[in-house]
Amino acid sequence: MSARFALVCMTAGINSTEELTLGVVVPFEESRDPNNGLKPLLELVREDMDGINRLILDQAISDVEMIPELAHHLIDSGGKRLRPMLTIAAAKLTGYQGREHVRVAAAVEFMHTATLLHDDVVDESDYRRGKKAARTIWGNQASVLVGDFLLGQAFRMLVEVGSLQVLRILSNAAAVIAEGEVMQLSAAKNLATTEDEYLSIVNAKTAALFLGAAESGAALAERPAEELSALRSYGKNLGIAFQLIDDALDYSGDSKNLGKAVGDDFREGKVTLPVILAFRRGGEDERNFWLRTIGEGKIEDGDLERAVSLISQHDAITATVERARSFGMVARDAMEIFKDSREKQALQDVIGFCIARAH
Amino acid sequence: MSARFALVCMTAGINSTEELTLGVVVPFEESRDPNNGLKPLLELVREDMDGINRLILDQAISDVEMIPELAHHLIDSGGKRLRPMLTIAAAKLTGYQGREHVRVAAAVEFMHTATLLHDDVVDESDYRRGKKAARTIWGNQASVLVGDFLLGQAFRMLVEVGSLQVLRILSNAAAVIAEGEVMQLSAAKNLATTEDEYLSIVNAKTAALFLGAAESGAALAERPAEELSALRSYGKNLGIAFQLIDDALDYSGDSKNLGKAVGDDFREGKVTLPVILAFRRGGEDERNFWLRTIGEGKIEDGDLERAVSLISQHDAITATVERARSFGMVARDAMEIFKDSREKQALQDVIGFCIARAH
Repeated sequence: MSARFALVCMTAGINSTEELTLGVVVPFEESRDPNNGLKPLLELVREDMDGINRLILDQAISDVEMIPELAHHLIDSGGKRLRPMLTIAAAKLTGYQGREHVRVAAAVEFMHTATLLHDDVVDESDYRRGKKAARTIWGNQASVLVGDFLLGQAFRMLVEVGSLQVLRILSNAAAVIAEGEVMQLSAAKNLATTEDEYLSIVNAKTAALFLGAAESGAALAERPAEELSALRSYGKNLGIAFQLIDDALDYSGDSKNLGKAVGDDFREGKVTLPVILAFRRGGEDERNFWLRTIGEGKIEDGDLERAVSLISQHDAITATVERARSFGMVARDAMEIFKDSREKQALQDVIGFCIARAH
Repeated sequence: MSARFALVCMTAGINSTEELTLGVVVPFEESRDPNNGLKPLLELVREDMDGINRLILDQAISDVEMIPELAHHLIDSGGKRLRPMLTIAAAKLTGYQGREHVRVAAAVEFMHTATLLHDDVVDESDYRRGKKAARTIWGNQASVLVGDFLLGQAFRMLVEVGSLQVLRILSNAAAVIAEGEVMQLSAAKNLATTEDEYLSIVNAKTAALFLGAAESGAALAERPAEELSALRSYGKNLGIAFQLIDDALDYSGDSKNLGKAVGDDFREGKVTLPVILAFRRGGEDERNFWLRTIGEGKIEDGDLERAVSLISQHDAITATVERARSFGMVARDAMEIFKDSREKQALQDVIGFCIARAH
């Protein structure tokens, strides 16, 4: 992490009241470790996560050798399993007493994994979470097909659970995610993309699964519409915040810790919020720079450094983190209809985790 | 169609009794038009197919411009809609009185279309049904993502139907199809593939959806297990027959009529039944030819002609069509538990159509 970026984040934290309202109750020194916000959730779901991990390994089995090989590559690659944790926590929050939340959570993780496989093919990514992307080992063809297999398995598992409402929520998510990815593809290299248009993409490609993960936990518990809506809103806004921080990290993160190389989005011509803001805030010369690099894909030595510098110059990272924080506040407030509990606290703390990743 | 191939088929027809047992009651002259076997089914489902076509157009709509564009390219490309017709006919056969069979049938067609999109990417095909493959117009990336969208929409539609049994049947099909495609990828270029191994692939990649399409019609009607099993068996065996004829056509068909260029499988290194048989029946010199072309992908001018000639020399097309006919007989017998009806007749006649395509 660059010293400049640390400073930006510290300043943003000190100057705004969001830091407080977000319930980041740990002293600032501690909040440098973003995992603190994740700890209560991890603690809450620990037991169930063992079940999820077993189920994931079981369901990734196939007589077709390449499938478990490739699936395990992804499964063992150290993802946080944030989405299935949301399902478990939402089920617990709403008093679900059965055992099916584990299966729904595993299906959510499969849906996510399928998306990653197809994303890597579409983005031509070489790395995923700091490891070689599956497509660079097994090829694009296997990545497409194993993604299809995992999506099929996810639906199989959901059918076994037998809740039509959960099936409705997550089949909806599957279609919306794909729609979002196509939108992103259409917007690629297009610097005329507005912040609103970009948010529509994020809503679909990322927030839809966070939303579905959280809502399906409460749907299992057969809770009233009010609680489902609250968890939808929580999941959606948390998902947007998560994605915006991800976008910020691509121009400021530490590739070793994050498994994402700084500049991936830049090289892939993705028009993310930091770029949208820097493009709009910049002068003609700068806009020509963005049009040449992101727009036409003509990237030369030193261009990434200039991009990072322009983004910093226009406070585009600070602004992106501020936007994320604002969505985080909406997520936090959405949860206020629930009475205080360990589960509610854990779900609210994870908002801080998602945003603190930017530190 | 080559004169040699017509002769082979005629001989096969005259020499065997299958032609009769398959219920091809039309005189041989007429059976030259394979569509005769399809007519009763087309007649039976005509009204419902209008509903399916409307639903397909409705559900392919998205605010994301590229999705309906690409989807309509496929939808309008003149596929026979054989799979959804099976669903409709099976529902009618088993006395289903509701309206949901139309939605299930449209979902089946979406699943099929999603598979085609991903297949073309995996196979790097340039043509599909005689039109440019979507990937050559919109790119591999859009094909992957729009395929995902259509699969998501298929599940959304099935959830709306609300039958967990239909969902179970078709989510199972989705996972098995993907598994079959991965198997096919693993077997690509591998001339050690046995006929049995190849049949496992066909069972998964093609027969699973025929099976699901037929069974789900009876599942809607909530018929006893015996009838569901019969339609599973019918669909599975019809699907295998269909695929084997497809494989035969790739070394003998007429690309203008079939939308498939002769030699596609050859160029893609697919080890299909005609190749498996010609390889096994051939001498060392011939095996080396197959190892160089299919195995190593080193294809020179004149190689396709030699491949077609070797396949013909070893009667590998005749044998493939005979195998297909044998699966067709199993499909026909599976239907015998149903009392005679227009629906039963139409479903049995379509077996003849699938096999007569080889004429």
